Amino acid sequence: MSYLFSSHYRAILFRRLWISLAKGEKKLGLPITESQIRAMQNCLEEIDFHKITEYEKELHHDVMAHIHAFGDLCPLAKPIIHLGATSTFVTDNADLIQLKEALTRILKKLHRVILLMTKLVKKHKAHPCVGFTHFQNAQPTTIGKRICLWLQDFLIDAKEWERLISSIPFLGAKGATGTQSSFLLLFNNNSHKIKKLEEFIAKEFGFTHILPISGQTYTRKLDVMILNALSSFAASSHKMATDIRLLAHEGEIMEGFGKSQVGSSAMPYKRNPIYSERICGISRFLMSLPQNTLQTLSTQWLERSLDDSSNKRITIPEAFLAADSILEILTNLLSRLVILPKVSLEHLKKQMPFLVMENILMKSTQKGESRQELHEALRQISQKIKGEKDPLKSLLSQVTSDPRFHLSPKEAKELLSIKSLIGRAPEQAEEFLKTFVKST
Amino acid sequence: MSYLFSSHYRAILFRRLWISLAKGEKKLGLPITESQIRAMQNCLEEIDFHKITEYEKELHHDVMAHIHAFGDLCPLAKPIIHLGATSTFVTDNADLIQLKEALTRILKKLHRVILLMTKLVKKHKAHPCVGFTHFQNAQPTTIGKRICLWLQDFLIDAKEWERLISSIPFLGAKGATGTQSSFLLLFNNNSHKIKKLEEFIAKEFGFTHILPISGQTYTRKLDVMILNALSSFAASSHKMATDIRLLAHEGEIMEGFGKSQVGSSAMPYKRNPIYSERICGISRFLMSLPQNTLQTLSTQWLERSLDDSSNKRITIPEAFLAADSILEILTNLLSRLVILPKVSLEHLKKQMPFLVMENILMKSTQKGESRQELHEALRQISQKIKGEKDPLKSLLSQVTSDPRFHLSPKEAKELLSIKSLIGRAPEQAEEFLKTFVKST
Amino acid sequence: MSYLFSSHYRAILFRRLWISLAKGEKKLGLPITESQIRAMQNCLEEIDFHKITEYEKELHHDVMAHIHAFGDLCPLAKPIIHLGATSTFVTDNADLIQLKEALTRILKKLHRVILLMTKLVKKHKAHPCVGFTHFQNAQPTTIGKRICLWLQDFLIDAKEWERLISSIPFLGAKGATGTQSSFLLLFNNNSHKIKKLEEFIAKEFGFTHILPISGQTYTRKLDVMILNALSSFAASSHKMATDIRLLAHEGEIMEGFGKSQVGSSAMPYKRNPIYSERICGISRFLMSLPQNTLQTLSTQWLERSLDDSSNKRITIPEAFLAADSILEILTNLLSRLVILPKVSLEHLKKQMPFLVMENILMKSTQKGESRQELHEALRQISQKIKGEKDPLKSLLSQVTSDPRFHLSPKEAKELLSIKSLIGRAPEQAEEFLKTFVKST
Amino acid sequence: MSYLFSSHYRAILFRRLWISLAKGEKKLGLPITESQIRAMQNCLEEIDFHKITEYEKELHHDVMAHIHAFGDLCPLAKPIIHLGATSTFVTDNADLIQLKEALTRILKKLHRVILLMTKLVKKHKAHPCVGFTHFQNAQPTTIGKRICLWLQDFLIDAKEWERLISSIPFLGAKGATGTQSSFLLLFNNNSHKIKKLEEFIAKEFGFTHILPISGQTYTRKLDVMILNALSSFAASSHKMATDIRLLAHEGEIMEGFGKSQVGSSAMPYKRNPIYSERICGISRFLMSLPQNTLQTLSTQWLERSLDDSSNKRITIPEAFLAADSILEILTNLLSRLVILPKVSLEHLKKQMPFLVMENILMKSTQKGESRQELHEALRQISQKIKGEKDPLKSLLSQVTSDPRFHLSPKEAKELLSIKSLIGRAPEQAEEFLKTFVKST
Repeated sequence: MSYLFSSHYRAILFRRLWISLAKGEKKLGLPITESQIRAMQNCLEEIDFHKITEYEKELHHDVMAHIHAFGDLCPLAKPIIHLGATSTFVTDNADLIQLKEALTRILKKLHRVILLMTKLVKKHKAHPCVGFTHFQNAQPTTIGKRICLWLQDFLIDAKEWERLISSIPFLGAKGATGTQSSFLLLFNNNSHKIKKLEEFIAKEFGFTHILPISGQTYTRKLDVMILNALSSFAASSHKMATDIRLLAHEGEIMEGFGKSQVGSSAMPYKRNPIYSERICGISRFLMSLPQNTLQTLSTQWLERSLDDSSNKRITIPEAFLAADSILEILTNLLSRLVILPKVSLEHLKKQMPFLVMENILMKSTQKGESRQELHEALRQISQKIKGEKDPLKSLLSQVTSDPRFHLSPKEAKELLSIKSLIGRAPEQAEEFLKTFVKST
Repeated sequence: MSYLFSSHYRAILFRRLWISLAKGEKKLGLPITESQIRAMQNCLEEIDFHKITEYEKELHHDVMAHIHAFGDLCPLAKPIIHLGATSTFVTDNADLIQLKEALTRILKKLHRVILLMTKLVKKHKAHPCVGFTHFQNAQPTTIGKRICLWLQDFLIDAKEWERLISSIPFLGAKGATGTQSSFLLLFNNNSHKIKKLEEFIAKEFGFTHILPISGQTYTRKLDVMILNALSSFAASSHKMATDIRLLAHEGEIMEGFGKSQVGSSAMPYKRNPIYSERICGISRFLMSLPQNTLQTLSTQWLERSLDDSSNKRITIPEAFLAADSILEILTNLLSRLVILPKVSLEHLKKQMPFLVMENILMKSTQKGESRQELHEALRQISQKIKGEKDPLKSLLSQVTSDPRFHLSPKEAKELLSIKSLIGRAPEQAEEFLKTFVKST
Repeated sequence: MSYLFSSHYRAILFRRLWISLAKGEKKLGLPITESQIRAMQNCLEEIDFHKITEYEKELHHDVMAHIHAFGDLCPLAKPIIHLGATSTFVTDNADLIQLKEALTRILKKLHRVILLMTKLVKKHKAHPCVGFTHFQNAQPTTIGKRICLWLQDFLIDAKEWERLISSIPFLGAKGATGTQSSFLLLFNNNSHKIKKLEEFIAKEFGFTHILPISGQTYTRKLDVMILNALSSFAASSHKMATDIRLLAHEGEIMEGFGKSQVGSSAMPYKRNPIYSERICGISRFLMSLPQNTLQTLSTQWLERSLDDSSNKRITIPEAFLAADSILEILTNLLSRLVILPKVSLEHLKKQMPFLVMENILMKSTQKGESRQELHEALRQISQKIKGEKDPLKSLLSQVTSDPRFHLSPKEAKELLSIKSLIGRAPEQAEEFLKTFVKST
Repeated sequence: MSYLFSSHYRAILFRRLWISLAKGEKKLGLPITESQIRAMQNCLEEIDFHKITEYEKELHHDVMAHIHAFGDLCPLAKPIIHLGATSTFVTDNADLIQLKEALTRILKKLHRVILLMTKLVKKHKAHPCVGFTHFQNAQPTTIGKRICLWLQDFLIDAKEWERLISSIPFLGAKGATGTQSSFLLLFNNNSHKIKKLEEFIAKEFGFTHILPISGQTYTRKLDVMILNALSSFAASSHKMATDIRLLAHEGEIMEGFGKSQVGSSAMPYKRNPIYSERICGISRFLMSLPQNTLQTLSTQWLERSLDDSSNKRITIPEAFLAADSILEILTNLLSRLVILPKVSLEHLKKQMPFLVMENILMKSTQKGESRQELHEALRQISQKIKGEKDPLKSLLSQVTSDPRFHLSPKEAKELLSIKSLIGRAPEQAEEFLKTFVKST
C-alpha cells in the first residue's frame, strides 16, 4: 500500500500515461513514430529523482520537472511527450488509477476479514450469551448472532467498495480547462478522434467509463465518495473493536496473547485488548479525514484551484494506509481471537431471574392480561429480588402465586429454557450466512 | 419537511405501526379481534400531547408514555398494543420511514434544481467565457459547459439518493436484542410466521427489504450512509455557490434582485450575492454533521446503547432541514439568476493575447519544434507583453518573426478564432445533456 | 438560554445599541436631541415582528427592516437612528453581548456542577475501588480520586470560560469596511471623538476592551475560540458520562431512579443509565460544531463575506443550547447519583490476588532482585492462578516459597492491606480540593 | 520538527527520564548508586533500534522493550531502571516535553511571520485600495489596514500559544492508575518524598507545574487544548491565503515568482498563487485534526484506555508538522510578496462613483434629511448610472440638483477625496502596531 502511493510508482504511472497518449495519438494519425514510443518504453523505469528535484527547484512545477527528466532520457521522444496534454492528464489520471488499485487491494483484505468472521459465526451461532442494551443485562442472544452484527456492517462496506471500484471513471484527455481545445487543434477539429483517443488510453489502464465533464481536474466529488466509504468502514471497525473491549472486560472474549507477551510494565497479570484498542485509535483518525475531502470539493474555484493538491497528497494516502492497517490488525485479531462460550453461559445463568421476565410477560399477556399491568408487576418484583439469595426461586414463587400471571409452576419452568430465551438468534445467524455472505 | 420530523407525525407513525402489528398478528392466528383493531384505527389521530408528557414524567420512558396514552383512548385494544414488541419496533421503524420519505422529498426538489440547470446549460452552452484555474485567466470555456461542472455533481448526488431510497430496509419486528424471542414465544416457535409478520408490516409501509440482522436497533451505519450522501450534496452546493460568488465579482453573473431590495445599509449601490452566500453557510453546517453519525455508530455498545438517541434526534432532522433549505434557495437562485454573456465575452477578448498561447504552442509543436522550448519562449514573451498597450499585436509580431514557431501571419490570425479557443465545450455540454441528463 | 438567542432579545439589543449610539453621538456634539433619545427609549420594547417581516420581504435586508420598523414607532428619531453605522454595528455587537452573557450563564451552571462533584469527592475520597486500565482490573484507587479525574477536566473548562468572558471585546463602531470613515466625516475628522464614542457604548454594555482592528465584522476567530472551549467541555462531559455508564455496568454506581420509572418496555427489571447516555449523545453533537466556526473563519473573504451569517445563526445558539442542556442533565444526574462503595469494595477484594502483584514487585525489587525477572515470574504465576479456587492463597504460597522474592509470609500479608494498595489516592483528592477547587 | 517527533529523540527522552528518576530516588534515600547512574548516562545515546524491535516482537510492549534494551547496555543499572514507575512515566512525560518544545519552536516561527507582516503594514498603511464585502466593491480601506486583519488573528494565535507553553504541566511520577502507590511503598509511606521526587524531575526538564490529578496518563484534555490552538492558527492562515488568492486575481498582489518558474505546463503566461493555495490545502488538514483529540478524550475509559495511543502517535506529530510547514510557506510567501499599490489605486478610482455614496449619505443626513430616504434615493441612482459612460459626473449632477441632498457642487467635490474615503485606516494600522505588536 505504501508503494502504491510512493513517488516512484507515481513517476512510473506518469510515464506509462505519456506512452499511452503517444501510442493513441500515433494510431489516430498524428506524426509520432514507433521509435519515439520505443524510446520512451525503454527508459520507463529509469527514474532519477535527483534530477527531477533539480528541475523542480528551477521550474517550481512538478509535472514539468518530470517531463524534462523523461525527455533527457529519450531525446528522440522529447518533442512529443505530453503532446496536447495539461499536467492533470498525468496527475489526475494517475490519481484515479491509484484510487482504483488501492480500493481493490483493501477490498481483498476485507473479504479475508469477512471470511474469518464467517467461520466464527458458524462456530458460535448457537452459543448463548447475555445480550446487552445500555451495557445492562438484556435478553440473551448468541455469540454468533452478535458477530453477525459486526459482519453485516462489514458486508455493507464491501458492497459499497465494490460499487465504487466499478464506478471510478478515467479522466481522459481533457486539457487545461476541460474543453479539449488543444486536442481539437491537434486533430483538426475531429471530435470523434478525441473520443477514440480517450477510449484507447482508458482501456489500456483498465477503465470502462470516462468522465464526461471536467474542469482541469476530475470532480473532487469522487474523493468525497471514496473517503466517505473508507470512514464508514472505520466506524464499523471501531464499533466491533469497542464491543470486543467490553467483552474482554467480561472475560467472555480475549485477544490471542503471545506466550511471553507483557500486559503492563507495572501489573504482570494484565491481558489487555491492545489490538482492539489500536483499531479504535486508527479508526478515529480515518473518520476525521472526510472533513478534508468535503471542504476541498466545497472550496474548489471554477475550473480548478490548486488548494486541493497539498491536501489530497496527505489525506488520500493516509486514509488508505489507515484502512489497510486496520484491516491487517483485524485479520490478526480475528485469527487469534479467544472466545469463551463457557464463561458466557455462566454469566447468562446468573442473570436468569431477570432475563426470563420478558418470556413471562409474553406468556401471561397471551392469556389475556393487560401487558402494561403485568409489566409493572414484574418491574416491582425485579426491584425486590435484586439483593436476594436465590432470586430465581423467589421470582418463580411470586409469579406462580399471583393469579394475574395465569402460570402454573410447570409452565413457569418451561419458560426458563435457554433455547427459548435466545429466540431465533442461531437461525438468524445461519440464514444470514446462507443468504448474504455466500453472495458476496 | 418540518412536519415530517414533528412529534405529531411521529406519534401517528407509532400508532400506525401498532395497528399494522396487530393486523399482522391477527392474520397469523393470534387472538386479536377485528374490533380491537378498529378501536385503534378510530382514535389514530387523537393525539393528546399533554397526557403523553404527563405519562413520560412519571415513567421516564417515551414509548411507554405513548402506549399508555393510546391505550387510554381505546381500552379495548389496551392489552394487545405493542404485543411482542420492544420500543424500537416503533421508534426505529418510524425512523426508517421518515428517512425514506425525507430523502424522497428532497430528491424531488433536487430534480427540479437539475431541470433549471439543464435549461441554463442549453441556453448558454455556446457562450464563451474565460476559464479560470487558480482563479487566474486560463483557456476559454463556455458558460454552459461551466454549469455542467456543477450539474454533473448534482447528478451524482441524485443518483446516490435514488440508490439509498431503494435500499433503505425496514427493521421489522426484532425484539429487545434482535433475537425475536418474544415473537417466537407468541407464535409457538413458528419462525415462518415471524417472517410473514415482518413482511406484512414492511409491505404496509412500502418497504421491500427487511434488515436481516439487528441488535435492538437497525445498524446506525444506515444513518452514516445517508448523512454522508447529504453532506456530499452540501459540498456540491457550496462549490457552485462559491463559483457564482466569484463570477458575481466579475460581473458575469448576478443574483436576481428585487426591485426595492437593499444591498447594504451603508452602501446603497451594492448588489451582493447573498443567496449564494447563504447556501455556503448552510452547506458548511450540513457538512459538519456526518461526524455525528460516524461517532454514534463507532461508539454503539453491543446490542445497543442509548447514546445514539439524543444525537440522532438533533442531527438527522437538522441535516434534512438544511438540505431542504439549500434546495429551496438553489431553486430560487437559479430561477432568477442573471447571466450576462456579453460581459463574459468582453472579458475574454481582453485576455486574448494570453489565452491564444496554448493554440500557438500546439500548432508549432505539430510543425516539429520541441514543445518545451516553445513553452519557454512563450512564457518569456508573456512576461514581456503584460504591461504593453497592444499586447496582442506585440505577441503576433514576435511569434511570426521567430522562425521556431513556423507561423505565417495568416496562420497566426486563424488561431485567434474564439471558436477554436473554446474547443469542444459546446459539444461536451450538448452531449452531456443528451446522454446523462435524459436518463435521470 | 433560548430567550438569550431569541429574535425578541436580539431586536431589543439592536434598539439598545441604537439608543446608546445616539446618546454617545449627542454627548460628543452631534445634533441629536434629548427628545429623540427619549422617543426611542419609550418604544424600546414595542416589537412588532409582523411589521419587521413585511419590511424584510420588501427590502431583503434584516437590519434595514428593523430600522424602518423602529423609525415608524418613533418618527422623531427616524433621521438619526443608525447614524454613521453599518448593519454590523448592531448585529455584531449584539452577537458579542450574547456570547458574553451566554458564557456567563453556563459558567454559573458549571460552578454548580463542580460544587456537586466536590461534595462527592469529599464523601468518597477514601472509599477504595478497583482501578481500570484498558477496562481491565488495575491497581486500586478510590471513588473520590476517580471523581477528581472528571472534576479536574471541568475545572480546566471553568478556568477557560472565565478567561474568555473577560477577554471578549466589543466591536465598537467601525463602519462598512472597518475604517470608521463615516464617523470621521460625522465628527469632522476628530479621531479622538470616535474613540470616545466607542468607549461610551462599550461601557454601557459592560465591555472593557474594544477590538482594535476589524473589517465589517469582528474577526470570526472569536467564535472559533468560544466553540473550541465549548466542545472541550463536551469532551469532558462525554468522558465522565461514559465512565459512569461503565461503572453502572459494574453495579458500583447507579443513576437515581424514579419510583415508577420504567427501564425498558420489554424488560421490566432494567435500570439503564439513560442520563449519562443522553449526555454522550448531546456532547457528540457539540463536539462536531467547531468544524463550522473553523471553516467560517477560513473562508471569510477580505473585509467580510456573508457566508458566515447563516452558519453562525445555527451553530452558535445550538452550541450554547447543547452546553446548557448538558449542564442541566449533569446537575440532575449528580444530585441523584447513587454511589455504592460496598459493591466497589467487594469487587476489589475479589481481585486482590492480582492487584497485590505490583506491591510484591516493588517490595522484592527493593531487596535487590532484578525488576524484569520478578515481573516475568509474576506474569507466569498470574496466568497459572487465574482459574484456581483460592488464587490468593496460591499466590502467597508461590511467592513466599520462591527465594527470588525474599518475602516472609508475614511480610507478604502486610502487602495485602487495602490502605497500601490505594496509595496516595485519598490524600491526592483531599489536597486537590484544598488547593485547586477553593481557588476557583 | 521531524526529529522532535522521531523514534530516536523519543528513545533519548525515555532514557533521560529514567536517569532523572534514578537520580531523584537516590537523592531521596533509595539504595541507588552513583555508578548505576553513571552507567546509564554513559550509554544514553547508544540506541539500537534493531534490538528494541526484537524485544518488542517478543514482549508486545514497547516500553518494556526499551527497558530491556537499555538494561542490556548498562547491566549495572538494570535492577533499578524504571523503579517504581509505570510505562506512562516515560511515554507521557516525554509527550509533554515534546509538546512544549514543539510549541516553542513554532511560536518562534510565528513571531518571524508577525515581524514580516509588521513591516508590510508599516509600508502600506496609507496605500488606499477598494474594500470588499461579499467580494463586491465596498468602502475603501488601505492595504496596510487589510494586512492588520490578518496580523491581528496571528497575534491572537501567538498569545494563545504562549499561554499554553507556560501552562503545560509535567505528569510526574504517578504510577499505574495515578495513585502513586508504588512510590509510597518505595518511600515507606512518606508522601513528602514523592512530591520532592516529582519536583526534582519536573525541574530537570524545565517544568514549573505538575499535574495534581491523573489516572495512568495525563488528561487528554491537554491534547485537545493544543490541537484547538493549532487548528485556530490554521484557520487564520487559510483566511489570509484565500484573501491573497483573491487579490492575486485582482492583480493587486502577486506571489514572488522565480525567474524561470513555470506557471502551467499548458499555459505559459500563468502566474498562479501556488504558495497561498498550498497553505489552504495544508490548513484544511490541520483543521480536521481536533476531531481526533476531542474524540480521544471523550472515549477514554476510567483510569486510561489505550485507544488513545495509536491516534495520538499520528495526529499530534502531523498537526505540528502541518503547522510548521504552513509557517515555512508563510515566511517564504511574505518575504517575496509583490504588493502593487498602483494597481489598487487605479481600481479604486474606477469605482469612485459608487464608493463615494456613503460619504454623501453621511453628509446629507447631517443636514437633517432622513437617512432612509436618502439611502433609497442613492440606491436608485446607483442602478441608473451603472452602465453609463461617466458615472461619476452623472452621480454628482443628480445629487447636487436634488434638494434633499443639500449639497453644493463644491461640497460634493470635497467628498471625493480619497483621504476621506479611507477613514481612519492608516491611523488604525499605525496605532495597532504601536499598541499591540510592540507588546508581543
